[in-house]
Amino acid sequence: MKLGVCYYPEHWPETDWASDARMMKAMGLTHVRIGEFAWSRIEPEQGRYDWGWLDRAIDCLHGAGLEVTLGTPTATPPKWLVDAYPEILPYDEHGHPRRFGSRRHYCFSSPVYWRESARIVEAIVGRYGRHPAVTMWQTDNEYGHHGSDESFSPAAKEAFRLWLEQRYGEVERLNEAWGTVFWSQTYRSFAEIDPPAATVTEPHPSHRLDWRRFCSDQMCRYNEMQVAIIRERSPGRSVTHNFIGDFTRLDHAKMGRALDIASWDSYPIGLLSEGPASHEKKQSWLTRGDPDFAGFNHDVFRACSPKWAVMEQQPGPVNWARYNPAPAKGMVRLWTWEALAHGAEFVSYFRWRQVPFAQEQMHAGLLAPDRTVQPVAGEIETIASEIARLEPLAQEKAEVAILLSYESLWQHEIQPQGNRSGPLRPARDLYTACRRLGLNVDIVFPDSELTGYRLVLLPAVTILDEALCEKLDRSGAMVLATALTGARTVSGRLPHNLPPGPLQRWTGVKVMSFESLPGFAEFDVTIEGKSWKASMWREAIETQGDVIGNFADGAPAFVRQGRFHYLACWPGEDLLLEILSRLCLQNEMPVIDLGPDLRMRSTARVKFAFNYGSAPIDLGGKGAPQEDNAYLLGGRMLTPSGVSAWPIRPILERH
Amino acid sequence: MKLGVCYYPEHWPETDWASDARMMKAMGLTHVRIGEFAWSRIEPEQGRYDWGWLDRAIDCLHGAGLEVTLGTPTATPPKWLVDAYPEILPYDEHGHPRRFGSRRHYCFSSPVYWRESARIVEAIVGRYGRHPAVTMWQTDNEYGHHGSDESFSPAAKEAFRLWLEQRYGEVERLNEAWGTVFWSQTYRSFAEIDPPAATVTEPHPSHRLDWRRFCSDQMCRYNEMQVAIIRERSPGRSVTHNFIGDFTRLDHAKMGRALDIASWDSYPIGLLSEGPASHEKKQSWLTRGDPDFAGFNHDVFRACSPKWAVMEQQPGPVNWARYNPAPAKGMVRLWTWEALAHGAEFVSYFRWRQVPFAQEQMHAGLLAPDRTVQPVAGEIETIASEIARLEPLAQEKAEVAILLSYESLWQHEIQPQGNRSGPLRPARDLYTACRRLGLNVDIVFPDSELTGYRLVLLPAVTILDEALCEKLDRSGAMVLATALTGARTVSGRLPHNLPPGPLQRWTGVKVMSFESLPGFAEFDVTIEGKSWKASMWREAIETQGDVIGNFADGAPAFVRQGRFHYLACWPGEDLLLEILSRLCLQNEMPVIDLGPDLRMRSTARVKFAFNYGSAPIDLGGKGAPQEDNAYLLGGRMLTPSGVSAWPIRPILERH
Amino acid sequence: MKLGVCYYPEHWPETDWASDARMMKAMGLTHVRIGEFAWSRIEPEQGRYDWGWLDRAIDCLHGAGLEVTLGTPTATPPKWLVDAYPEILPYDEHGHPRRFGSRRHYCFSSPVYWRESARIVEAIVGRYGRHPAVTMWQTDNEYGHHGSDESFSPAAKEAFRLWLEQRYGEVERLNEAWGTVFWSQTYRSFAEIDPPAATVTEPHPSHRLDWRRFCSDQMCRYNEMQVAIIRERSPGRSVTHNFIGDFTRLDHAKMGRALDIASWDSYPIGLLSEGPASHEKKQSWLTRGDPDFAGFNHDVFRACSPKWAVMEQQPGPVNWARYNPAPAKGMVRLWTWEALAHGAEFVSYFRWRQVPFAQEQMHAGLLAPDRTVQPVAGEIETIASEIARLEPLAQEKAEVAILLSYESLWQHEIQPQGNRSGPLRPARDLYTACRRLGLNVDIVFPDSELTGYRLVLLPAVTILDEALCEKLDRSGAMVLATALTGARTVSGRLPHNLPPGPLQRWTGVKVMSFESLPGFAEFDVTIEGKSWKASMWREAIETQGDVIGNFADGAPAFVRQGRFHYLACWPGEDLLLEILSRLCLQNEMPVIDLGPDLRMRSTARVKFAFNYGSAPIDLGGKGAPQEDNAYLLGGRMLTPSGVSAWPIRPILERH
Repeated sequence: MKLGVCYYPEHWPETDWASDARMMKAMGLTHVRIGEFAWSRIEPEQGRYDWGWLDRAIDCLHGAGLEVTLGTPTATPPKWLVDAYPEILPYDEHGHPRRFGSRRHYCFSSPVYWRESARIVEAIVGRYGRHPAVTMWQTDNEYGHHGSDESFSPAAKEAFRLWLEQRYGEVERLNEAWGTVFWSQTYRSFAEIDPPAATVTEPHPSHRLDWRRFCSDQMCRYNEMQVAIIRERSPGRSVTHNFIGDFTRLDHAKMGRALDIASWDSYPIGLLSEGPASHEKKQSWLTRGDPDFAGFNHDVFRACSPKWAVMEQQPGPVNWARYNPAPAKGMVRLWTWEALAHGAEFVSYFRWRQVPFAQEQMHAGLLAPDRTVQPVAGEIETIASEIARLEPLAQEKAEVAILLSYESLWQHEIQPQGNRSGPLRPARDLYTACRRLGLNVDIVFPDSELTGYRLVLLPAVTILDEALCEKLDRSGAMVLATALTGARTVSGRLPHNLPPGPLQRWTGVKVMSFESLPGFAEFDVTIEGKSWKASMWREAIETQGDVIGNFADGAPAFVRQGRFHYLACWPGEDLLLEILSRLCLQNEMPVIDLGPDLRMRSTARVKFAFNYGSAPIDLGGKGAPQEDNAYLLGGRMLTPSGVSAWPIRPILERH
Repeated sequence: MKLGVCYYPEHWPETDWASDARMMKAMGLTHVRIGEFAWSRIEPEQGRYDWGWLDRAIDCLHGAGLEVTLGTPTATPPKWLVDAYPEILPYDEHGHPRRFGSRRHYCFSSPVYWRESARIVEAIVGRYGRHPAVTMWQTDNEYGHHGSDESFSPAAKEAFRLWLEQRYGEVERLNEAWGTVFWSQTYRSFAEIDPPAATVTEPHPSHRLDWRRFCSDQMCRYNEMQVAIIRERSPGRSVTHNFIGDFTRLDHAKMGRALDIASWDSYPIGLLSEGPASHEKKQSWLTRGDPDFAGFNHDVFRACSPKWAVMEQQPGPVNWARYNPAPAKGMVRLWTWEALAHGAEFVSYFRWRQVPFAQEQMHAGLLAPDRTVQPVAGEIETIASEIARLEPLAQEKAEVAILLSYESLWQHEIQPQGNRSGPLRPARDLYTACRRLGLNVDIVFPDSELTGYRLVLLPAVTILDEALCEKLDRSGAMVLATALTGARTVSGRLPHNLPPGPLQRWTGVKVMSFESLPGFAEFDVTIEGKSWKASMWREAIETQGDVIGNFADGAPAFVRQGRFHYLACWPGEDLLLEILSRLCLQNEMPVIDLGPDLRMRSTARVKFAFNYGSAPIDLGGKGAPQEDNAYLLGGRMLTPSGVSAWPIRPILERH
Repeated sequence: MKLGVCYYPEHWPETDWASDARMMKAMGLTHVRIGEFAWSRIEPEQGRYDWGWLDRAIDCLHGAGLEVTLGTPTATPPKWLVDAYPEILPYDEHGHPRRFGSRRHYCFSSPVYWRESARIVEAIVGRYGRHPAVTMWQTDNEYGHHGSDESFSPAAKEAFRLWLEQRYGEVERLNEAWGTVFWSQTYRSFAEIDPPAATVTEPHPSHRLDWRRFCSDQMCRYNEMQVAIIRERSPGRSVTHNFIGDFTRLDHAKMGRALDIASWDSYPIGLLSEGPASHEKKQSWLTRGDPDFAGFNHDVFRACSPKWAVMEQQPGPVNWARYNPAPAKGMVRLWTWEALAHGAEFVSYFRWRQVPFAQEQMHAGLLAPDRTVQPVAGEIETIASEIARLEPLAQEKAEVAILLSYESLWQHEIQPQGNRSGPLRPARDLYTACRRLGLNVDIVFPDSELTGYRLVLLPAVTILDEALCEKLDRSGAMVLATALTGARTVSGRLPHNLPPGPLQRWTGVKVMSFESLPGFAEFDVTIEGKSWKASMWREAIETQGDVIGNFADGAPAFVRQGRFHYLACWPGEDLLLEILSRLCLQNEMPVIDLGPDLRMRSTARVKFAFNYGSAPIDLGGKGAPQEDNAYLLGGRMLTPSGVSAWPIRPILERH
């Protein structure tokens, strides 16, 4: 459990560096990320490297006892490179290059950019790969951000064709898999296939699905190229990439397999402002963020690589959202502890000092631009001392797992079926309900080991194969699948035996037809005489299993066959809490409704409580100790933005 | 009165065909439309035709006793054709081609596409033109859909110039007609004129109006090319095209003159979801559709050609709207009877079997993808047996006609004057009011015969010439013209004598100025001391006639001179009902307010009632028989989604 | 104080001209603007001039005793010119030309267009420069309208590079000023710099700020080219340009320095409809316009040039807004008097006669298209006779000044910090509060003389230099600066000493952090135990001064040091009225709350009251005379849309 910070020595007078490093150290920070946008300083013109400043910056941090994470600067190719090779630019769907003047202006399929990227990474890793201060490398920065996952360049077109050929071998197999007979979309060769762009009406969904796969794969391959260079020339160092929260255009699980640490950039307030949350939630959590935003993403990235971390933690107002409130006092500490309670290797704040120029000039840092230390630094010093008291915090496998499938998210994005809240909504709704019930949650992927879970949730996992179903069965877990689970094959078609496809065998359910409904058209689901609201999706199913819940017209809504449950609609929050509570009860998993603002997280021996609301909460009624002296952090009355922690098993080594 | 279905043998194993055909026949279907998107199966590469499968498919249907409507496949040119001749693609207004990968990716002005279209149509008609099963041809599919009415290609530019030259002869006449002296827009030759695209601020409205005419004409000409080939090589067969409901970019009346049957594609629920109806109406009619959507379009297409039909009838949830609810039970039967009661030759369901791949995989069919028969099939079997009991249903000319002018709709689209509900709104509001009052309505066009109508309504028919006014006068009908009627000349200018232009002479009205108003600015119209709401448009008029209604400041709002009435505003629904009731009363036409959900349709000897609402309706108080045994269909209590029918004149031949 | 009208003889039969001129004269009009869109009539093809019609038109007006303002026709280059030199078109940010077919289709940076503009201006001024009727010239028409301030053409790119080189000399200075080290945006030469367009995410804010400066400068330079030609060849005539109200893309102060008269085009109702006002305000002022729209713009343009005027005054419904109501009866007179009371040289109505064709056919004139005189003409005749009674009206310097900085408006547009109402909102809110308190207001610019003001308001003037602060100090005025004042340097960076930058010294305030907040997040500011609402912006400040108001958590919200006050938030209207009232009280400036609809304007010896509301107002309680016979116009009861005026000092010369 370490704390770190993101730092840009190139933005500041060299005379400030040593003092900055001392202040970092004094604040309790141990890790410093640098360099990830500095290409034009490292190589001011083609082939001329300027290492001096970076040598001195690293040595300065090293001298202060800080560890350095060095970023490869490929997210920002310099103007001279763009001018020399305009073909490296990404292209929009009309064939226009997206231009220089911000960041991420490159196409993952450009052979020239691969070559130039390899060259600069080799140069940097060659120089600092064995520097004792450099203990971690970060590849690039936020792959795919700003729509940069997609490029419709000539190079991307060629690469897509090749990718398709490798996937399908013969074009006839692609025609068959996609169903190109529809609307005479048949291809005679891979060379006839373009990216899905600028069509007269919507492009073929299988075409789009493979395009999403391709775009994600291109990012993974590009990353692996950088990782390979680093591993060869910088032995013993960790490799990470800083992913984006709530981002779905990249298969994090696939990319994460190449990394040692999956890190991500956590902006709870900015993302609430920009996200699909309701007006009421935006009001309620204005200065604290959605209680499940960070937790969900922690659990996602925890599942991607051997270790995980927060590379950029919002420390104050940001610059890029529609509106940018300051986090409530205490929230930076709360977010940090939420991350550590989830098992983060480190939490690193973005950024050390607010930069007074360029795009992010209104993004707060730990220091104001004039080097005044911001009040948030006090929270960080507090955390540093608290960590020393509590660590180590061993993690435990959760009893509940939510299955996330990036292919399914892409399919869902392509055919959202009336869901206007984005492809993550199904998983997020389930996650929130579990966390509200006090449960730890693991995110799992289709290739994850499932043994040991007592409950596995399938939130509209549209693409699902036989093998996964069998693994679910073998796991012995109780399974809950929602509407749209198993609704597509790997080719993006309806299963030949209808949804839920391979899961029919286990759920005894067959979906005969599907409705998407507007927000105003709520409807009832009745279980044992009591009714709850559902909305958005409703399926007409045939079932062999037990009918637990019904729609108003008597049709089956919630059914089970053995350990497998199927919910033929999208549940409102209360219905979801009811259903999960029932399943947990049957599983002898104790639950308690924590309400909208309180969240808890159990580690092996310590349990944490976090108050995301604006009113104090008495933990005495929530299973926490009654006496304040039983707490390791905080106490029974949990103030707004407060953190409490208490032992849940004898802690022998506690001092 | 026949029932049919749309079928795609190329999507299914040949082994299913015979069984499909038998099932169709057993369900009471007699017509099957096939082939309209099958170009790449018919001609897999340039000049190589594969007729075998289509021969067998037609023979198979024929063998089962089904009639075949064969579609020309020109809505979906294959990729090999697009690659060989990229110039056939349509271009957007910035000069980018709209690309292959869905449908309708061709430019109506491309000489190459004309040639290739003629070639494929000749080949298909040459082969099947005299096949006994093939009793009808459909040209292309939904001309103009997805914005394909417009193309800004080089070919379109050339064709537009030629079209303008043919219309105006000399460029000076165009300059004079448009008024290009404004803003120095004068042209020295037709070769200087481009399509109206990408201008700095709004393009010249007369330029846009002629562009709309040109785009519509190009579609008509292209269609006539196909029709001519069919007529020559397939004597005795009907020719149809499947038009789009509520579509205004094509002059259906003009195209319809070349056809035997004007058919259209009726999606009452999808179009409600996508259309401009209020939130309340979308809630109210979520699973039943707007009660006047289908009726209005039936009456439009009934007016276009000697016969008319529904080529695609929604049979369940569709895939393409924002949200896609299932029709309430009974609605497919209701929609079918509404069509038959309006005089449809046939109603054909789209589609036979839900296809499990490609863009429309979530569009319901009569069969599920796994061939399970959907419950809706039961409704169709019911209709088939009911038809046998009721046919034939002779149609009668209505007493009320609403005049629709595509030129006026285009002018209205170009200058909507604050109307945010689309150019059809004026006609639709009048149609709804008439139908609510229990009236049959005929749609008429400017060149229609008007004799025999007792009331002719002019819903903001902005472009209106002297000849039409004289025809209105000669008809002897009472006339009601609303605000904006006669507000433009054929060139899109204000009339020299001010609006309502030629109608001044008959209405005694002269419009001195015009206001468009926001939705929140309702205002009163008072007639004989009682007030009703109006909104959106208000005109300051001078009048020679009798003032019947006034605005709050005393200015004339509703006036008459002889049989001609003029309403100088846009009426709220209640005001419109009041005015129409008054006019009908004066005309000795009985009316009754059926309310928002009940609709009736009279044929020569049978009257139908349709309940689009969610509550039962007692027809006893609506002029229908009191005794249930007097009904041919249903009874006095009309259930939600129910249909009742009863004789209104002695039916001698009734069994 | 004169009245005028905009006239297009080229739109009408020559036989109407003399009669038109007589009618103008009879209506009390003395000035006629003509010719500003007539290029294609003056030069129907390259080098062939047709002067005859214009000679006759000018002579005709002259003969009727009217003065002529002649416009240069450069806003509408003819098609032949565009076809001969396509490079004169403006380009959008994707590099597409914006096309012919409306107006303003030229790029200010095109050398060819400069040459051609100079040629046509020289030709026209050469012919009419000494014509006795021609007393004023108008350059072009509404520079920058329809986004024409920006062009991304190759010529603009070259010009921008040159402009940057002239501003910075060395590219290193630009790199330093902008802070291009961020995200490796460093440039090695000016030739590497493109306009900020089509970047992957937001472009660099300093890059955008200099682009705005450049675009505005290009318009100023182009205008100066025209002015120089006019001054040389038409001695003794005034030169004006007709600016756009509420427009911020052009530095009016800078362009105004080259003009004799800054005129502007006043459309109070159209601009309300299109603008960011709340729904409630749009309802309330539907037919009268925002009471401060015209006043604010009058005061802006009054500050730009030695004289100012209204070149186009809305006389009825317009054509171009979302909805276009007719002005309430009396409003045209009210607007005219509001302008004259602010010191307008003349008010000129747009347009004489409604044109029955082309884009503006629905724009009302004083005459209908059929030459019927509209009722508004009666209001104009009234004004003409009233002017004769009241003139001259000497103006007085106001006691309150609001500082407007176009650079700050551009910076604000680039980084709006959650303000969704446009960059003028801060200034407009302050203006409205002052006017509601009965104060005359002067708009001042950074280079204006400030001596003599008692109160100077800085509405989020983000870019502020030391010299301006010193001038504020020397002026002796009380100063109120709001949040974001001084928040940027001239390079668009945060000041090195943090906001409010140079103003820190005088206000004793240092802004440590800034929040932007959504509309729903109002918060309290408490002054002496009473609380008012604020919203949108909140700053955490350190202060050396006296704390007058506090936020709910006790942090300072409103502080003062000597005469300088700083408000660390955005005030709701009530808070703003409270603060201004306090400052005025301390300054011994009497204030009275006139409410939302009443506005007053004092000239040297006459005070005017204007009622923008729909209820009568008793002026007796607002400091106006009790007796009706003490009024010069109107009386004590001010009717809706009414004007009252009364003497406020002995008027010796009154007849």
